[in-house]
Amino acid sequence: MENIELLHNIIKNIKEPEEKYFNLAQEKLNNLTKPIGSLGRLEELAKKIVGITREIKPVLDKKNIFVMVADHGVTEEKISAYPKEVTSQMVFNFINGGAAINVLSKLVNAEVIIVDMGTAADFDKNLPIINRKINYGTKNMAQESSMTYKEAVDSIITGIELVEDSVRKGTKIIGTGDMGIGNTTASSAITSVITETTVEDVTGYGTGLDEEGLQNKIKVIKKAINLNNPNPKDGLDVLSKLGGFEIGGIAGLIIGAAYKKIPVIIDGFISGAGALIAQSICPTCVNYMIASHLSVEKGHKEVLKKLNIKPLFDLDMRLGEGTGAALGMFIAQASINILNEMATFSEAGVSKKNN
Amino acid sequence: MENIELLHNIIKNIKEPEEKYFNLAQEKLNNLTKPIGSLGRLEELAKKIVGITREIKPVLDKKNIFVMVADHGVTEEKISAYPKEVTSQMVFNFINGGAAINVLSKLVNAEVIIVDMGTAADFDKNLPIINRKINYGTKNMAQESSMTYKEAVDSIITGIELVEDSVRKGTKIIGTGDMGIGNTTASSAITSVITETTVEDVTGYGTGLDEEGLQNKIKVIKKAINLNNPNPKDGLDVLSKLGGFEIGGIAGLIIGAAYKKIPVIIDGFISGAGALIAQSICPTCVNYMIASHLSVEKGHKEVLKKLNIKPLFDLDMRLGEGTGAALGMFIAQASINILNEMATFSEAGVSKKNN
Repeated sequence: MENIELLHNIIKNIKEPEEKYFNLAQEKLNNLTKPIGSLGRLEELAKKIVGITREIKPVLDKKNIFVMVADHGVTEEKISAYPKEVTSQMVFNFINGGAAINVLSKLVNAEVIIVDMGTAADFDKNLPIINRKINYGTKNMAQESSMTYKEAVDSIITGIELVEDSVRKGTKIIGTGDMGIGNTTASSAITSVITETTVEDVTGYGTGLDEEGLQNKIKVIKKAINLNNPNPKDGLDVLSKLGGFEIGGIAGLIIGAAYKKIPVIIDGFISGAGALIAQSICPTCVNYMIASHLSVEKGHKEVLKKLNIKPLFDLDMRLGEGTGAALGMFIAQASINILNEMATFSEAGVSKKNN
Repeated sequence: MENIELLHNIIKNIKEPEEKYFNLAQEKLNNLTKPIGSLGRLEELAKKIVGITREIKPVLDKKNIFVMVADHGVTEEKISAYPKEVTSQMVFNFINGGAAINVLSKLVNAEVIIVDMGTAADFDKNLPIINRKINYGTKNMAQESSMTYKEAVDSIITGIELVEDSVRKGTKIIGTGDMGIGNTTASSAITSVITETTVEDVTGYGTGLDEEGLQNKIKVIKKAINLNNPNPKDGLDVLSKLGGFEIGGIAGLIIGAAYKKIPVIIDGFISGAGALIAQSICPTCVNYMIASHLSVEKGHKEVLKKLNIKPLFDLDMRLGEGTGAALGMFIAQASINILNEMATFSEAGVSKKNN
């Protein structure tokens, strides 16, 4: 079967989380030894996860954070504060456990899975990297489409397949992460088009541009959008014209999570761009997303508005890699432990409310 | 020595965290493989903890969350949605591990320490409760001072001693927690007086009052303040007239943490009232506080404004017990792991920024 048919079949099979399970979770939460609703968003999150998994006592023991890595042709336009080589250098840092995502994943007991979605480099086959390279980096979107339509579809299918593999091995919750010098440029372009917001309103300093660099970045994004003229209603068209392979991969992870009925913790701005693509292709997917944090990167607010999901926290972070998702996974685990481990009023012999 | 002299001596010995250590931490953070400052408040928190502990590589392996428990005479005025008996019933729930604080503390690897600061009940000596009972609950503040001045001082000294004991056993970070039916009433009264805000502006629904209950609660608090006429500038006076023994104990925990140079994670509104007392007695203590969350309980915003500290997150929680502190401890641990475990640019062979 062609990948595009495969994608349509998968999407057809994605269902809304079930109301019945929300209600069962609510009933359970109301009997725990605490004032009703007093754990606020932890309780909401527990309900959401029960609805997603269709399990009254969900277990999140096996956690994966996918760091989707790719290069961006648009780096030719000097839109990043860091040289393009950093993408591949950081892969080695991930392998050696020295990156922020390694530290935070270890803390929350999540496995980091590094996926080469399309770096410009070739890595030794013996390294712990999943090689799903779509191509050696995207083309420069200020000059042409960043990838072919087929590559866009393939990158999404890749993400879905990664989740299927992972779930087969027992994974219960995933987080999205990214690495790719130049990818805030691609993400701002995608966000501007899909949310129908001006480029200025969704373009930020990335890893640390100065004011002049930001103005150039905005100019490059405008040029790319004008040149490629993507259809804001067609996520695949937007992805192929402005995307990155890691962004397509992230969209695939999200669709895959919805397909396999597991929660997916969305990281910051880059993952958010992937989430916009996923939403455009499969609106139901949004119900499977848990937004971790609000990024400092300017466009993220618009992303979350369009997705209509509220992030769990705001710690002024803007690193990517899945660092926000790792912290979000902790909160998800906390919510589920509350649901599964707290005593009920009758078990504990505690009096209920007066009246 | 009298306890009041002891308290003054301790306060005299509390110093500001050292600038030198902030700078050393900043330097270390700037060399880690991430854009400078990109982990936002995690980096700020790591710096703060280095400044507090005077250690470049702080270790937070041993964590204690103190659940300070006491009863409140003001429950006679029907200011709570739950009967007074729940205070002691919940102690058994804490002992059996069924409360929210047990679940969350376990998740963050913190030990829950239950302290009877002044419940109306007597507990079996063999139970794992630290008996530091100041009295069998406070008096009804709407009729008289809730405690004597000596009891106020003793409750603070108790908190300090608990931290000293704990640090002697190797504790590196503490969190504050509370249990006491009626204690949002005491906390609103304290907050209103110290922050010089109207009672209406700092009084909320507690564990779940209805509108009529809230109006009664406001009336009772006003009556207590008018009757006792506490001096807003004198934390000990406010504590003795309107406080609870657990609130005094929490103030003591905070002063004790500052004295022993360890970070203290402040829970929500009740702990915040304790923090206001601590700040009033010893303004430097604020530098040792880490505010975990913003509580739903109405007065908490004013508390944080007066303390001039920004909470780490807002998950619409209002349970107390130290549940917010437990989650905050995770973030503190995350910040320190980032500082201690990430690779530097040179270690990882990653290129630094262009320019």
